[in-house]
Amino acid sequence: MQNNLESRQFRLIRRPNGLPAQDDFELTTETLDAPGDGEVAVAVEYISLDPAMRGWMAEGKSYIEPVGIGDVMRAFAAGTVVASRHPDFAEGDRVTGLMGAQTHAVMPGTQVNKVDASQLDLPTYIGALGMPGMTAWFGILEVGELAEGDRVLVSAASGAVGALVGQIAKKKGATVVGIAGGAEKCAYLTDELGFDGAIDYKSEDVDRAIATHFPDGLDIFFDNVGGQILNAALANLRVGARVVICGAISQYNKTNGVGGAEDAPTNYLSLLVNRAKMEGFIILDYIHRYDEAYPQMAEWIVSGELAHKEDIDEGFDNFVETLRKLYTGENFGKLVLKV
Amino acid sequence: MQNNLESRQFRLIRRPNGLPAQDDFELTTETLDAPGDGEVAVAVEYISLDPAMRGWMAEGKSYIEPVGIGDVMRAFAAGTVVASRHPDFAEGDRVTGLMGAQTHAVMPGTQVNKVDASQLDLPTYIGALGMPGMTAWFGILEVGELAEGDRVLVSAASGAVGALVGQIAKKKGATVVGIAGGAEKCAYLTDELGFDGAIDYKSEDVDRAIATHFPDGLDIFFDNVGGQILNAALANLRVGARVVICGAISQYNKTNGVGGAEDAPTNYLSLLVNRAKMEGFIILDYIHRYDEAYPQMAEWIVSGELAHKEDIDEGFDNFVETLRKLYTGENFGKLVLKV
Repeated sequence: MQNNLESRQFRLIRRPNGLPAQDDFELTTETLDAPGDGEVAVAVEYISLDPAMRGWMAEGKSYIEPVGIGDVMRAFAAGTVVASRHPDFAEGDRVTGLMGAQTHAVMPGTQVNKVDASQLDLPTYIGALGMPGMTAWFGILEVGELAEGDRVLVSAASGAVGALVGQIAKKKGATVVGIAGGAEKCAYLTDELGFDGAIDYKSEDVDRAIATHFPDGLDIFFDNVGGQILNAALANLRVGARVVICGAISQYNKTNGVGGAEDAPTNYLSLLVNRAKMEGFIILDYIHRYDEAYPQMAEWIVSGELAHKEDIDEGFDNFVETLRKLYTGENFGKLVLKV
Repeated sequence: MQNNLESRQFRLIRRPNGLPAQDDFELTTETLDAPGDGEVAVAVEYISLDPAMRGWMAEGKSYIEPVGIGDVMRAFAAGTVVASRHPDFAEGDRVTGLMGAQTHAVMPGTQVNKVDASQLDLPTYIGALGMPGMTAWFGILEVGELAEGDRVLVSAASGAVGALVGQIAKKKGATVVGIAGGAEKCAYLTDELGFDGAIDYKSEDVDRAIATHFPDGLDIFFDNVGGQILNAALANLRVGARVVICGAISQYNKTNGVGGAEDAPTNYLSLLVNRAKMEGFIILDYIHRYDEAYPQMAEWIVSGELAHKEDIDEGFDNFVETLRKLYTGENFGKLVLKV
């Protein structure tokens, strides 16, 4: 068993104003205590970059405590157990959990999940089979109340969650159009993911494009983006539509978190005219129900029926730079940092 | 039986731009044909003024066809049958229905409802027991999913719908605070309707006042107003809250109908943080279920347990002037025009 594990860590030292900056973080080195009873020590191999992280950095009440100033930045990660004092884990086990933006972590065994890295790559366990996958499943099926034949629009559709939302909806018999930025991402949606259509928000009038794809309107809009794209979708609802608010990545850095959006949905009265609802959700509320989703998702992913794409940056020191790509639309697929 | 019934009528001749104006209407006189088989002729006694009328005047798709240019303005009304060729109606029967802004109407008997004017005044049948009453009932109980102990905020709380929403919620064990304009209306809420509190939007900081009344946030916001009041309520939601979009009277005349609101809910991301939903509804969808609400509402109203207040203007010619009061907040209670 290793003692005196040195962990390099990105600590939050200032709440970002807008897009997170290098100066909002400090790179520190801490010598971790060896794991105590019931704990494991993990060498982190992959750190997950998720849009929700922007909210975690903001001050003020949210659905989860903000990361404290001076604390290691909260992050999902995957790695290998290097020391264990928990009976369920042995050295060499591959695990996932909220390990933080650091190279090593010592955590209670109850807070990590063992995964089978012989079956799927480690990054998949923090992507399509991790929080993004569960978010897609419960978001579209539970919150969106997806029904066969529904006309579904997804924003950030080539992203970690959106790509899965669209594919799950297709499997359940929906017509699916995705919104993404640029021809390459749009081609990916239709050619590789089997979407029925794609809208390039960088080159198209989104409002008009939605109306062209869905002349009779939308049953579900699954929104990861917010802002003018949400507003355009609201203008194209059918009676009884559901607008699923999963995120608002276009707004997080304008608003210092998730407090108030700069580009507000002026078309919200479409909810009245169309007897529609707009509902937010947080995947943490569904953790106790992951077992409902996991076996089916794992089967689809292992069999290749559900495509997924990881965008893997390398080098622990690039954490902040990689994180910023999430909010500028530069990533293509689930963004992961290889330590 | 009367022949050649002369009806004076307010016809829509121009779609309003902002607040409806006299010049948007023309006062005409039409000689109506005597009722045909299955029809009744009605002398209109009371015309109902409802916020929804602004949407009916606007161009473009809504939940109901807009009033055509040149058509008699659509309006609920109550009156007396003066001639009948329908077996269920006799001269002298008191009826309600969508008779329009006119002094006389000839309608199919299937489109009017006989009411017992010995039990309650006619205006009550187009108010607390009419569309506003049904809107309150289904809005708070069905869309709002009211549960005992809920913390409920209602806007336009001294209005036709809001006053009933709050009282129904109180009867079901909720804590209720209403928002209204001016000390008199606020006193009415707490002293006569039994609300737990009132917020005067004309003299108070609504956001702060909501937080004071409900330091732990709201379970339900029943909104008739929209704009900055909706936004303030969104900033004060609890986990699992429901925002019921019944109307947006502050916005209708800014937006030429119900298309896009000028003051948009910038705080909509509170729906995400609080896993809350915002849902619109249209009472016309519940017509087939009125029987679920009517007996209980009638019992409460006849017994006096449910207070209701009509604001009755007189003189058919004052139709437009009276209608405008709805949107300026000048009315106090259910606004009705006595013909």
